[in-house]
Amino acid sequence: MSTFRVALKKTVDDSYEIEVGRDLAGKLAEDLKRGLAGGCRRFALITDSNVEKLYAEAIRDKLLEAGFEGEIFAFPAGEKNKTRETKAALEDRMLEAGYRRDCFVLAVGGGVVSDLAGFLAGTYGRGVPFINYATTLLAAADASVGGKTAVDTPLATNLIGLFNQPKKVYIDIDCWSTLHAREISSGLAETVKHACLADEAFFEYLEAHMDGILQNEPKACERMAQWNCEIKYQVVMKDEREAGLREVLNLGHTVGRAIETLSEYRLLHGEAVSIGLTAACALSVQMGYMTEEEKDRVRDLLVRAGLPVGIPGYIDREALVQKLYTDKKVRNGRLRFVIPKGIGEIVEFRPGVFAEEISENTARQIIMEMDPRA
Amino acid sequence: MSTFRVALKKTVDDSYEIEVGRDLAGKLAEDLKRGLAGGCRRFALITDSNVEKLYAEAIRDKLLEAGFEGEIFAFPAGEKNKTRETKAALEDRMLEAGYRRDCFVLAVGGGVVSDLAGFLAGTYGRGVPFINYATTLLAAADASVGGKTAVDTPLATNLIGLFNQPKKVYIDIDCWSTLHAREISSGLAETVKHACLADEAFFEYLEAHMDGILQNEPKACERMAQWNCEIKYQVVMKDEREAGLREVLNLGHTVGRAIETLSEYRLLHGEAVSIGLTAACALSVQMGYMTEEEKDRVRDLLVRAGLPVGIPGYIDREALVQKLYTDKKVRNGRLRFVIPKGIGEIVEFRPGVFAEEISENTARQIIMEMDPRA
Repeated sequence: MSTFRVALKKTVDDSYEIEVGRDLAGKLAEDLKRGLAGGCRRFALITDSNVEKLYAEAIRDKLLEAGFEGEIFAFPAGEKNKTRETKAALEDRMLEAGYRRDCFVLAVGGGVVSDLAGFLAGTYGRGVPFINYATTLLAAADASVGGKTAVDTPLATNLIGLFNQPKKVYIDIDCWSTLHAREISSGLAETVKHACLADEAFFEYLEAHMDGILQNEPKACERMAQWNCEIKYQVVMKDEREAGLREVLNLGHTVGRAIETLSEYRLLHGEAVSIGLTAACALSVQMGYMTEEEKDRVRDLLVRAGLPVGIPGYIDREALVQKLYTDKKVRNGRLRFVIPKGIGEIVEFRPGVFAEEISENTARQIIMEMDPRA
Repeated sequence: MSTFRVALKKTVDDSYEIEVGRDLAGKLAEDLKRGLAGGCRRFALITDSNVEKLYAEAIRDKLLEAGFEGEIFAFPAGEKNKTRETKAALEDRMLEAGYRRDCFVLAVGGGVVSDLAGFLAGTYGRGVPFINYATTLLAAADASVGGKTAVDTPLATNLIGLFNQPKKVYIDIDCWSTLHAREISSGLAETVKHACLADEAFFEYLEAHMDGILQNEPKACERMAQWNCEIKYQVVMKDEREAGLREVLNLGHTVGRAIETLSEYRLLHGEAVSIGLTAACALSVQMGYMTEEEKDRVRDLLVRAGLPVGIPGYIDREALVQKLYTDKKVRNGRLRFVIPKGIGEIVEFRPGVFAEEISENTARQIIMEMDPRA
């Protein structure tokens, strides 16, 4: 018997820039000319059927004008298409069009597009450069920092995927103007979550500027986008592999993800998170980490953002409790919740442990006591 | 417009050990108890339908005895099953069995199993620990160092996948005793390739010990396995991301992969590589980098290893030429070949450039002049 050591210690620099602004296609073309994609000249622009006409075609044209070659690969819009099958179909179309390793992937769209395109880029030719052009508020809040990419399967949400850092993220606030009010609201749920878990000053800023944000007022939107990135970065930087601290980002997602699945995607992701955040606050009050007043402030801000804070009538609450215990976060069959501590903090139960096991009965009680959706 | 920098520079240590020996299941169980999989107690043993009964069940039982829990997920043997569909089916079975992130993947088998299982492990829950128990000579030579994992698609071989370093590799020479002669020979093709590209002394060792190796003589097999790992490691270490030096590993693979696909997998991978290596030597002679005598030494060693050095009659040679120009290695439509320089070296055409564009006519001429398969 003999052993052989493969020494693979090295320094990796996955640093990148997030650019927040308006109409950033020109900036993207400039950055690419300066070598953002490492000299690759051929792009695969991945988008969905909604964003294709709205923004993707104009961005493609800008890149063609700038001397790059490439085309659009669009898939039908919607979370239900964030699947392995959609990924495979896009890969086959790219292969058929002659794409090999010498290309880069440009995602243009919201979180579904960046999750799917980022995953695809990470496994196409074992990894080609990935650039993310975020067109929704939710993608700006959620998908710009962290490098998480994934698809859904019939049995699990976001479980098949990988960590893939983009070369750059563009957050184009102009694109928010074409979002439906419901999508704007959905995006704000992650924003309120960020404020709740990390920064009371941000929470107060949102209370003061919610109306301006809903009207797409430039300065408020830009400040909010930056703040979101900063908070997510602080959390992710300290803990890139999702043990410990990073878990705080799951605030509201335990109940949120379960209810999103049970609603069969009638609820948008942010709407589900809003309901989950409300549940987490109720749990916090019961555990003595939050006052009723603080809980009401969170609830009021969510309502002002146009988000649901009760459970829709079509959701069977007992089925929701059951569903919770098949969540991917369940470790050894025990369900852990992230609990807010007042506004702007998370309860640290033990050093480095930001989630606590909650018994099925307690979870059931909280869920049964929640309001019906208004 | 404002920018935000996500600083993600860090040191990563993906180092691991390769253990070469006989009957290593006990060692595996010991290593796991000492935390090889980072404390995960639940294993998904991925294997194929051939290896399942031969070795996988005994290894599973050993792990169960050692207090771990888990089960076997087998797929039908054969390169043609190294697909996205097989990966998805295995994922679904694991999800159904309740596997989430708190598991590790143990590949038990040859190159197809480790390619598929390594890819699956890299994307299951965005990456769970991966351990590789190699049961074939080919896997020992090819799949133990480098971290390459992938599946095939109808339009491309090994193009969808990722780099995923295992926590440890076990090369169990005992398992080689149940390989068919043809599989042993197939594994030796990568071995001869390694000797050709990196080490004339290894080539001479193979010339001296080929008969012992074919009879599974312990010392010769162990020495060969180590030498293979060392060569691959030297090449991969210097260039982990496959620009430049790593390209030398493609020696024989340009023609090899094309002929493997065209044969509809009637040729084993190593058999195809053997034919490709023969073609590369012929090209080298024509370019003046190798003597006729050296070419004949390579040819003779391949023949002694039981490998084909001519093109089977059922392969349409003109179709082979056409196929070459759709290979994933084609950059901007130009086909590059790795060319051996005598025995034990590769031609470095320019500093750091180990492959040269070969015109379609030259490639056609070489292929047309090759012998028919004996």
